[in-house]
Amino acid sequence: MKKYRDIAGDGGSNIVGQVEAQQARLRSRLAGVRRIVAVVSGKGGVGKSSVTANLAAAFALAGWSVGVLDADLNGPSIAKMLGLRGRSLAVGADGVDPPRSALGVKAMSMDLLLPGDATPLTWAATTQAESHTWRGTMEANALREFLADTAWGALDLLILDLPPGTDRLVTVAGLVPALDGTVLVTIPSEVSHLIVKKSITVARQTGAPVLGLVENMAGYACPDCGAINPLFSGPGGAALAAEFGIPFLGAVPFDPRMAAAADRGEAFVAAGIDSPAARALLAVADALRARLAPR
Amino acid sequence: MKKYRDIAGDGGSNIVGQVEAQQARLRSRLAGVRRIVAVVSGKGGVGKSSVTANLAAAFALAGWSVGVLDADLNGPSIAKMLGLRGRSLAVGADGVDPPRSALGVKAMSMDLLLPGDATPLTWAATTQAESHTWRGTMEANALREFLADTAWGALDLLILDLPPGTDRLVTVAGLVPALDGTVLVTIPSEVSHLIVKKSITVARQTGAPVLGLVENMAGYACPDCGAINPLFSGPGGAALAAEFGIPFLGAVPFDPRMAAAADRGEAFVAAGIDSPAARALLAVADALRARLAPR
Repeated sequence: MKKYRDIAGDGGSNIVGQVEAQQARLRSRLAGVRRIVAVVSGKGGVGKSSVTANLAAAFALAGWSVGVLDADLNGPSIAKMLGLRGRSLAVGADGVDPPRSALGVKAMSMDLLLPGDATPLTWAATTQAESHTWRGTMEANALREFLADTAWGALDLLILDLPPGTDRLVTVAGLVPALDGTVLVTIPSEVSHLIVKKSITVARQTGAPVLGLVENMAGYACPDCGAINPLFSGPGGAALAAEFGIPFLGAVPFDPRMAAAADRGEAFVAAGIDSPAARALLAVADALRARLAPR
Repeated sequence: MKKYRDIAGDGGSNIVGQVEAQQARLRSRLAGVRRIVAVVSGKGGVGKSSVTANLAAAFALAGWSVGVLDADLNGPSIAKMLGLRGRSLAVGADGVDPPRSALGVKAMSMDLLLPGDATPLTWAATTQAESHTWRGTMEANALREFLADTAWGALDLLILDLPPGTDRLVTVAGLVPALDGTVLVTIPSEVSHLIVKKSITVARQTGAPVLGLVENMAGYACPDCGAINPLFSGPGGAALAAEFGIPFLGAVPFDPRMAAAADRGEAFVAAGIDSPAARALLAVADALRARLAPR
């Protein structure tokens, strides 16, 4: 934590040298990572982190080595969903060892560094009048450090779970040597579509392929009878994907047991629950894997 | 739009003077505003904007003059939810006239300024390598202009609908002459509680009273039979409020007709639908009104 504050607070004199050293370290640390994919929504709360955690688990079940970088510094939830909260971080010769979930998914998150549940990031900085000037820089530096100081090792796939907002993707894409693609997550509401459309524009701006759109919360899957009842009643994700000429990866209904699994830190797709939501998530992972280039 | 880019791009030479002039204009523009309240969640997608739009409508139904500033520049949804998308903005002698919803709620949102659905904010800036440095400054400047250039007129209540993330509140609180309080919105999931706890810490840091916690998506209210079935199965908001010693304003179940009303730009609480969700929202508005000091 301390060093992020120092970078933000030293008036800029030493930033350039630190950043250049980090960038070199970053390239070397990511040398064993075969593919980097960003998961993006634009609108918050569409279940992006939940989809990310379950996709990571599904890829791990398929035998891939997977890592997840929680790029949401101000609302980190990946560590919780992967059952990693409270794990201590070991620092080895190759950097910080990312903790591994029960399925072996490696993860790094600001949540693993904050001292207490109620402690927000940038506590010290946001009390200063000029803090807003530095927020963007702090975020970019913190993410660069997460990428550069973590011993990711050999990974078939590193997933970047982005924070809400349409503006972060270009910054994050600029931090990695090469982005292999973006996955967009929406829910079937016009409000969410409005915002994910902006994210599609930004995703294309990165130059990386848009790998597809996932529709989450596509109805309420009754845990008793399995019937799928309406939740949001807006336009469908398949039509949105067609309108923008991007692949549609699938629709995932809401299952309250999926939210409960996230709260327990378990991967819903690996919990052995026969649910339309779990089947849909595994199918989305299959569709995504088919779109990723062999490496 | 253009002037926001200019402020972000001029290298800093003229910022101080512009900001000082804006701050003076801002104090004069907000002179007729009796109370300013920020609605905050931390985690995105808990329905904060939906709660905000319905609280604004409930206050308007009770005879209050209400305005809403959509402080979410990168995922604006308030204009859509209030039925104001596509309205043209008139500029009068006192600044930009905010459009009014069917119930008379005045609103200002970045969504009213962007040229197309798929156009994100900071398109031009985020393509530049240094853009992340300026993002925080751009946001603060854009919000200051929204506050200072809008002819809010006489308002009993101005609601600031904050973007997701725990770090924006202190910046936004610093933009207004005085913040009368914060309202926190969560859903009954441990993941959301984890993040709203951080927001409670930041809310207290502003020095403004924490007016209370609203629990949204507290079960699924069946539009057929009215039964409330589980949605998220995590801990309750009342217990969280008690743990942190803040008022609990009420629990609002999810009703798919509420999401559909938001998509149509209608206030659910004013749609004449007898629903546990609508009754709960009106009760939350009553509880909040009781906590606001008479002015």
